[in-house]
Amino acid sequence: MAICRPSNRHNMGIGEMHEEMSLDSYLKSQEQRYLDLYFRLLRQPSVSAQRLGVEECARLLCDTMGELKINGEVLPTTGLPVVYGELQVHPAAPTLLIYGHYDVQPPEPYEAWVSPPFEPTVRDGRVYARGSADNKGQLLPHLFAVDALRAIGALPRLNYKFLFDGEEEMGSPSLPAFVQANRERLKADQLYCSDGPYDPSGRPTILFGVRGLLYLELECEWANRDLHSGQFGNVVPNPAWTLVKLLATMKDARGHVTIPGFYDEVVPPTPHERQLLAALPFSEKDFTASLGLPPEVGLEAQDHFEALMFRPTLNIAGFKSGYLGEGTKTVLPSKAVVKIDIRLVESQDPDRMYHRIAEYVARHAPHVKVRQVGGAVPPARSSSETPAAQAIIRAVRDTWKAEPVITPSAGGTLPMYPFTKILGLPMVFVPYANPDETNHAPNENMSLEAFWRGIRTSAAVFTELSALDRSAFVAR
Amino acid sequence: MAICRPSNRHNMGIGEMHEEMSLDSYLKSQEQRYLDLYFRLLRQPSVSAQRLGVEECARLLCDTMGELKINGEVLPTTGLPVVYGELQVHPAAPTLLIYGHYDVQPPEPYEAWVSPPFEPTVRDGRVYARGSADNKGQLLPHLFAVDALRAIGALPRLNYKFLFDGEEEMGSPSLPAFVQANRERLKADQLYCSDGPYDPSGRPTILFGVRGLLYLELECEWANRDLHSGQFGNVVPNPAWTLVKLLATMKDARGHVTIPGFYDEVVPPTPHERQLLAALPFSEKDFTASLGLPPEVGLEAQDHFEALMFRPTLNIAGFKSGYLGEGTKTVLPSKAVVKIDIRLVESQDPDRMYHRIAEYVARHAPHVKVRQVGGAVPPARSSSETPAAQAIIRAVRDTWKAEPVITPSAGGTLPMYPFTKILGLPMVFVPYANPDETNHAPNENMSLEAFWRGIRTSAAVFTELSALDRSAFVAR
Repeated sequence: MAICRPSNRHNMGIGEMHEEMSLDSYLKSQEQRYLDLYFRLLRQPSVSAQRLGVEECARLLCDTMGELKINGEVLPTTGLPVVYGELQVHPAAPTLLIYGHYDVQPPEPYEAWVSPPFEPTVRDGRVYARGSADNKGQLLPHLFAVDALRAIGALPRLNYKFLFDGEEEMGSPSLPAFVQANRERLKADQLYCSDGPYDPSGRPTILFGVRGLLYLELECEWANRDLHSGQFGNVVPNPAWTLVKLLATMKDARGHVTIPGFYDEVVPPTPHERQLLAALPFSEKDFTASLGLPPEVGLEAQDHFEALMFRPTLNIAGFKSGYLGEGTKTVLPSKAVVKIDIRLVESQDPDRMYHRIAEYVARHAPHVKVRQVGGAVPPARSSSETPAAQAIIRAVRDTWKAEPVITPSAGGTLPMYPFTKILGLPMVFVPYANPDETNHAPNENMSLEAFWRGIRTSAAVFTELSALDRSAFVAR
Repeated sequence: MAICRPSNRHNMGIGEMHEEMSLDSYLKSQEQRYLDLYFRLLRQPSVSAQRLGVEECARLLCDTMGELKINGEVLPTTGLPVVYGELQVHPAAPTLLIYGHYDVQPPEPYEAWVSPPFEPTVRDGRVYARGSADNKGQLLPHLFAVDALRAIGALPRLNYKFLFDGEEEMGSPSLPAFVQANRERLKADQLYCSDGPYDPSGRPTILFGVRGLLYLELECEWANRDLHSGQFGNVVPNPAWTLVKLLATMKDARGHVTIPGFYDEVVPPTPHERQLLAALPFSEKDFTASLGLPPEVGLEAQDHFEALMFRPTLNIAGFKSGYLGEGTKTVLPSKAVVKIDIRLVESQDPDRMYHRIAEYVARHAPHVKVRQVGGAVPPARSSSETPAAQAIIRAVRDTWKAEPVITPSAGGTLPMYPFTKILGLPMVFVPYANPDETNHAPNENMSLEAFWRGIRTSAAVFTELSALDRSAFVAR
């Protein structure tokens, strides 16, 4: 493990010099320095999927932390390294674990970029580069906030732990084991993360949960080869029919899943969460129209968001059997495969769900094989009602001068469970990036306004949280 | 239209010269001549799918008929031409309409042929060439039988009509309209055709019917694009689920189709046909074992053949929705398509069946579109109990010195309905080719034994039928 000691290069006696300065004035004074550090990090490729520059970027991020007088270390995992840092302020103070990632998506196709992906370029008030928003431009604001608050003598009485993942864009395969092995070191009171875009309306988004994921393949094979449907039709079983008949028993006419136990362990929304759902910006008409759906399939806001955030799905992600080309082929297929993804909600467990499905299939269609594909991800969801949650909401509202869109859960999945389940922390996401960041795509960008507001948001969150006692942080 | 007049080239005063000769002795004397005519026809490519040499082959076949003193004509259709010929023997005699096809399957891949596909080559008593068995080597025996019987003064008192299709390998798209337009010209009492292989046991096969075919696509589209299954799962309908739920209602737990009217117009087997089914060579154990099926899905002989020959199918020939690749993709598909082929049995009508299915879908899943793909083919089935059928069975048994495998219907489909439905003829197939003819594949071949036996079979059939009155020919 490499330990990057605080550097003195930028040590200008900060802390004394700027004690009387406001945060805004200080940020103004450091504009070029912070942008230089940001752009230097963007110039270093760190494409985890391609193993391109990831270790180099980890060392550079560690150096950056050192230059900001935060002890950083590059720590090994079973995969690509994490960058870890701590700033202990007071043993009795609450501890914030800040999670981000320094790896980036592959930049391809290069030709679609207006300026090169690893050469940050400012145009119209935006920084264009791979990782500008996802996530280098959203993890640095936390570090800059600490640096700036300390410089003006206003560092909130919190302990800070920074965990920067090098494999997030690959689904963080090594993170759970790393967290498990480093339980003591990572002990904290609250997880905080900035990733993704804020609400398209311009209002800030605050996210308290994610759904989990279990991905299955159900496969049926009867004859050992494809057969002529005339010469064998009616006398050899058809695996597509077997899957169709099996699947059809899994949902009732209203789409409710009938597999015994499928909704077990589902934690329904609290009255407060129901209020939040009703307050989310939503137009049923615009939603169906934008997707070309007949209006009658739309749901009212409350139902829509409860279905999306608080109920598990049983989605057919793929169904493949027989002839898939144009026109006719009269084949009796040998094999049929259906891919199913199940979004899990708090507090469902992927293993228990797997066994439920496997038992159901064994009982109803013993000839069908069930197998899990990819790694399962448990769900995570934290309360938005604790004093800590309320403090974060307040800090965001005050900084943005806008009412946050408080989202009890995303419909999608992120591996937050190592924090919520292994470390027992409440989680919260406060995205700093502009809605048109085009992350994962060419011309990824972060608006400079969003970047500087990110630093001020982190500073406000740290300040609000520091006013709380440790008992104010309660995992759901 | 080209009329090919009888040539005098091979006219050796046949009829007087050979009056006392036996058929076998005469065939022996003509061995080289018949093989020369056969090989000349094989050397002429006639690949209908590629429009390769088809017209040339039609003219050559017409010339060949002329050389055998049968008036031949090349007649236009809306597609590729047919070759038609007549030999009127006596106005009061029954008329046999002999159907065959002079077009062939594409020969590709060339490199898999031991000898070139259009250069007939004899190895180990077999003629290797494209079309050697399918169907040039099975249509010529009828012509040679007429020629030989006439030469020995034993031409049976029948009227002969020959109809040789140039599009059979494409599904005979122009044949129904041609037959319809030429109803008068094609008037006859019995259809006779030799195509396909005889029974693998070496016993002759006699086939009295085929199932029909209707091919449908059912398509469901909900959202106008594929969606993220997390961000939209539970709030946007999934077209694969829509099709699964719809399809599942179409069959009960035992596989019986529940669509109202699906089994209407099904003509069940007669007591005689049931006896034939029970007598067909079949081992349930060998059948399931050869296909790698669990023994419990096998049916007993009677059930097996009744399902295959006398009941319509509702086969899923293809099901396609969402992600079809390896591993995981969490997509909520925009579209799902299922391809269904329905094998129809006597006396079901494809149009009526189409409307039944379309009505059912409109009632149960109005968002699903139904469309027919390709041309529908009505079924055809004739009685095996008429005096004419019995005469043909007798002729085959006597010639082969083996008990025929009498098959009331094939499971598969051939466009025989223009003959049975438009002309009202009883149909019969007597395949002359060896079971390992590998038709439609490289190294297609016809054993010379099968070829010469084919001529003797045609001769015996003509002779037996000529003893009958016209009233002995009854369409079912």
